[in-house]
Amino acid sequence: MALNAAGRDIPKEVDGRRLKPFAGAFATPPEKGRRMHAPEKPMVPPGQKKLLSSLDEVFNRIGLADGATLSFHHHLRDGDFVVNMVMERIEKMGLKEIRMAHTALFPTHEPLVKLIEKGVITHTEGSVNGPIGQAISMGKMKGVATLRSHGGRVRAIQDGDIEIDAAFIAAPTADDYGNCNGLYGPSAFGPMSYPRIDAKHAKYSVVLTDNLVPYPSVPISIPQHQIDYVVPVERLGDPERIMTGTMRITSSPTRLKIARYAAQIVKETGYLRNGFSFQAGAGGISLAATKFLGEMMKKEDIHASFANGGTTKPLIDILNAGLIDVLVDGQTFDLVGIDSLRNNPKHVEIGADFYANIHNKGCNVNTLDVAFLGATEIDTDFNVNVNTHSDGVLLHGIGGHQDVASGTKMAMMLVPSRRGRVPIIVDRVQTITTPGEVVDVVVTEKGIAINPRRDDLLEALHGSSLPIMTIEELKDRIQRETGRPKEPEFEDRIVGLIEYRDGTILDVIRQVKV
Amino acid sequence: MALNAAGRDIPKEVDGRRLKPFAGAFATPPEKGRRMHAPEKPMVPPGQKKLLSSLDEVFNRIGLADGATLSFHHHLRDGDFVVNMVMERIEKMGLKEIRMAHTALFPTHEPLVKLIEKGVITHTEGSVNGPIGQAISMGKMKGVATLRSHGGRVRAIQDGDIEIDAAFIAAPTADDYGNCNGLYGPSAFGPMSYPRIDAKHAKYSVVLTDNLVPYPSVPISIPQHQIDYVVPVERLGDPERIMTGTMRITSSPTRLKIARYAAQIVKETGYLRNGFSFQAGAGGISLAATKFLGEMMKKEDIHASFANGGTTKPLIDILNAGLIDVLVDGQTFDLVGIDSLRNNPKHVEIGADFYANIHNKGCNVNTLDVAFLGATEIDTDFNVNVNTHSDGVLLHGIGGHQDVASGTKMAMMLVPSRRGRVPIIVDRVQTITTPGEVVDVVVTEKGIAINPRRDDLLEALHGSSLPIMTIEELKDRIQRETGRPKEPEFEDRIVGLIEYRDGTILDVIRQVKV
Repeated sequence: MALNAAGRDIPKEVDGRRLKPFAGAFATPPEKGRRMHAPEKPMVPPGQKKLLSSLDEVFNRIGLADGATLSFHHHLRDGDFVVNMVMERIEKMGLKEIRMAHTALFPTHEPLVKLIEKGVITHTEGSVNGPIGQAISMGKMKGVATLRSHGGRVRAIQDGDIEIDAAFIAAPTADDYGNCNGLYGPSAFGPMSYPRIDAKHAKYSVVLTDNLVPYPSVPISIPQHQIDYVVPVERLGDPERIMTGTMRITSSPTRLKIARYAAQIVKETGYLRNGFSFQAGAGGISLAATKFLGEMMKKEDIHASFANGGTTKPLIDILNAGLIDVLVDGQTFDLVGIDSLRNNPKHVEIGADFYANIHNKGCNVNTLDVAFLGATEIDTDFNVNVNTHSDGVLLHGIGGHQDVASGTKMAMMLVPSRRGRVPIIVDRVQTITTPGEVVDVVVTEKGIAINPRRDDLLEALHGSSLPIMTIEELKDRIQRETGRPKEPEFEDRIVGLIEYRDGTILDVIRQVKV
Repeated sequence: MALNAAGRDIPKEVDGRRLKPFAGAFATPPEKGRRMHAPEKPMVPPGQKKLLSSLDEVFNRIGLADGATLSFHHHLRDGDFVVNMVMERIEKMGLKEIRMAHTALFPTHEPLVKLIEKGVITHTEGSVNGPIGQAISMGKMKGVATLRSHGGRVRAIQDGDIEIDAAFIAAPTADDYGNCNGLYGPSAFGPMSYPRIDAKHAKYSVVLTDNLVPYPSVPISIPQHQIDYVVPVERLGDPERIMTGTMRITSSPTRLKIARYAAQIVKETGYLRNGFSFQAGAGGISLAATKFLGEMMKKEDIHASFANGGTTKPLIDILNAGLIDVLVDGQTFDLVGIDSLRNNPKHVEIGADFYANIHNKGCNVNTLDVAFLGATEIDTDFNVNVNTHSDGVLLHGIGGHQDVASGTKMAMMLVPSRRGRVPIIVDRVQTITTPGEVVDVVVTEKGIAINPRRDDLLEALHGSSLPIMTIEELKDRIQRETGRPKEPEFEDRIVGLIEYRDGTILDVIRQVKV
């Protein structure tokens, strides 16, 4: 064990993997001369067909073995049919020790819990929202769960930390040679950002589609020359649950207060200026803050050079009002967003490599000024937890949290001061998702704390009427109402690893005691 | 020496490189388990600037040494300033033994001849049109010139056969973080297809632009995360010579006859059907054939699923008439083409990997039905030469010739029967650019020859009123007028290698005797 730069004990090895402790947000550059993962060289001569009639035929061609690594992406969200469809066959084929290299799993994937218990799945390399995370927290999986940010996952595949045997790409529109996009068809979800890296590096890339169109299908999000097979399926998912519908801006007075504070901070710190940039989350508070920010921009005749989605209607409204020059989009949450992506040339689809990979020649989060993010817990060192609840149970993925916080100039956590009797500010978060060194501002309805590393922000906000206080004061103020949270108890066994986006280990998750 | 599958003697080794002889169009698949080239892992943290003030500053940063490999692309064609601008500095810096990994050089790059003579440049890995090719043919370069097709170049970079130290990317529009496109600005040339593979694999990728725009520049042809530096220059090139202007359809009755024959063959062989596809070249005969084909399509109410440029006005006219569903574009030759690429979502930009790489999971040429190509010589085995003239002098690049001919279902050579006293059909071409096994039809105004391998075409054309004859008959008919061509004389020294698109050697070029 050794303390990493975020103050956590990181063992030398877990589950056969040697761990490199987190050393600081940009303190672990690639080793000199270190090269990326090199995919195998393929050849597909003219006349060789890619269109197969069924998933079974796909499995006959690709010949998976025990221990295979399978990848999936989560653009179909809780409406996804693909993961269960594929994994049901994997079980029937009698395969074991599968490594799931998905981007994120949702409650709809609850059937996988059984496969975890049976040893069909022994490792997960993506976000495990809900029941899967819970099962892992309870110690039901043989191996460990590795959690990574959006950018961290790209880095891991790029480096060969994850070697994908077969990538299953859910494509709302595709042709028989593999060109595909997420913009049209009954399962349309918007930009196809996450599986791009999979298609580049996987041994086999398989497109599943419920909207096979004549060749060549355009626009092309993932190109034919990275796809081995195309298989039509009846339905990729349930449209009702793919699109979250029009995202709701919070109507809670508490949360609206947080959102107003946030917009006001952007203004008072001087970030609200022509050509600035921001990332708007899709949560209720973030949406409200985005809306208030848009109103300020309009009033003061300020336009942003770009904004980054989770794309939602409030963001599209600002784009359409001419207040944002370009909207870069890796994930769309509503139909308004999809429609805009189809038709507005200033609304552009980007991949997760472009968006957030720390080990490329400069990703998009590096150029952000302001970002609105959430948290389940924040500690007095400004460390943020979005993965586990106060009871220590793994319930959420990292998403872009680490990437955005470390890239943006001002990373703002917009959070209610408490959820029931659970305070947002604690002495020590259960799990560090994002290290405090890249967290700049914590905004609650009870008060606002600025990371003392950011003298410049404290100075800019000097004399502000905003309720600015130290994080300790804020914690005390909140905990006076909630009381101190109860500490959960853990077994010794490590069931999860939180990777920082550079591949070092930020924290471990232990099995909860029941 | 050993005869390769095209019947040419290929030495075991040339200039320190072990050669693998050509074995057939699809007879050399990648070795089992062979992996692609893996670029080095970079990291560009937030705040690190990419915008440099001058090319000299670029060179200070990237620290080139003798023997470095530099890459360039030829979208600026004979109007390009970039190659000379960079190479002039290379000479001033006293560097030697530079390997030029450009896509193509033009007459405007004549100043490089001096650098070749001085040993500043000792190897070329791209097309050497005009004076550079001539200098190489005369034995002026220390090393050999390697010629590759568009797809073959992608393959070579992908495999690490060419390891690029610095790629210089001429970007008509770019932002200060490296996002760039070829669609706007004073040096606009259209799609940015060729340097995409360079940006992915080069150790350093440098964008030069004469149109620096605010971040983020969209659309994005090459993304920021593959670019190290951006340097503004006064002018990338001479717009007059970047765009060839409106391409001229031939007005020669001879050539119009060839074009009419070509369109008629497409019809009579049954390829002219709904959903067919074709590639139209940019030469005068090709353009005329494209026009005639379009007229047939309109008359018979037939639409193509896609066409592939060289994009020119005649092709855009067919697209705009609704006769082509999608136009995929790697190179645009006129302003009409650029305008269409900017505004028509059915006109899409593609990279050379997508277009023509034999070693990916299926490139676009694989899906072509019909292609109109040219030639400088064709022999009675249907081998085509587009590289050397009848005097044996290297004067042209391969372009997409090999790629398209081997991918498309019917590769048609549209050629005048003679150029002056030089007949198009000979017993043995000086240089094999494209092997006869993938050449299907030779169309001249004196007659049409079908490759006897294509029973199906011969059968389809049985009873046609078209002047179909054997290639020997066609040769005799032409040579009765021109006489037999004079054989040039060569020295023993090999000055050039013709690579087939899979990396094997099709032919060698020897120094001409003067």
